[in-house]
Amino acid sequence: MSRVELLPQPLDKTTFACYGDVIETAGGESFSINQGYAERFHDLAAIDVTTGGGRPTLSIFHARPRPLPIEIGFMERHPLGSQAFMPLEPAPFLVLVAREPEIESLQLFLSNGRQGVNYHRGVWHYPLLVLNKESDFLVIDRSGADCNFEERRLNRSAWIAHG
Amino acid sequence: MSRVELLPQPLDKTTFACYGDVIETAGGESFSINQGYAERFHDLAAIDVTTGGGRPTLSIFHARPRPLPIEIGFMERHPLGSQAFMPLEPAPFLVLVAREPEIESLQLFLSNGRQGVNYHRGVWHYPLLVLNKESDFLVIDRSGADCNFEERRLNRSAWIAHG
Repeated sequence: MSRVELLPQPLDKTTFACYGDVIETAGGESFSINQGYAERFHDLAAIDVTTGGGRPTLSIFHARPRPLPIEIGFMERHPLGSQAFMPLEPAPFLVLVAREPEIESLQLFLSNGRQGVNYHRGVWHYPLLVLNKESDFLVIDRSGADCNFEERRLNRSAWIAHG
Repeated sequence: MSRVELLPQPLDKTTFACYGDVIETAGGESFSINQGYAERFHDLAAIDVTTGGGRPTLSIFHARPRPLPIEIGFMERHPLGSQAFMPLEPAPFLVLVAREPEIESLQLFLSNGRQGVNYHRGVWHYPLLVLNKESDFLVIDRSGADCNFEERRLNRSAWIAHG
């Protein structure tokens, strides 16, 4: 049985819509604020964290690249809340999502480094996949009682061979 | 009557605590996640946006430098919600806050460019003051009915002469 190798497609709002929001200014609408000294690109992600008495939480993740090739043997999701990731320095990174935690369902996207993502509540995804260098992300997700984490092994592994 | 010129002090958590949170990893505690490939600096800002039926909102502000010297003639605040600003590329910026909207109360801080701020609900502040170049910020604040904006002219102007 040959290896299943995942190849990324560019991240864009339309293609990613089943999984979440792409957080970016490119191609978006804005309005002028601050006496004309700023543009506001308003309400770019559906922050959905109040299920089960949850509250929004702001954190920073400092992520390290995994050595290539990367074996993808599981997926995870947060049944009670959305989770947004925004790079704090422009650097491309991979985004791996799935409708079901099965190898046939995996979809790999490449952020241009200025795009963040917001996984909608319950969307299967792989942890951060940064490329080339260590990177910080601002993360907006849910805090609260009740278990908000589910992990499932895939029926068989997929691989990411190139950054 | 001579001009009042504001001089910045370095932004740090202790000094800024009366006004809000400093969002940074430096000096903070973290725990390991993602199979050891990331560190989580957890819950760095008090996101306080649900007063009056509000909800958390994620936006991007694209800010332009104001020409120097900058006349500070007013302050603003959001009585119903906190407002967090995180630079999306490391670049120093100024943070101007006050306990009361009076010239005697103004406090000017300089972010090192990797530090964001979260103004607590109702804290008087000046709009974004970026230096040298146009910059993007991720902003987490409140959406909802009811007026969440208040502006007050100062009894007299203060000035920022240098970036």
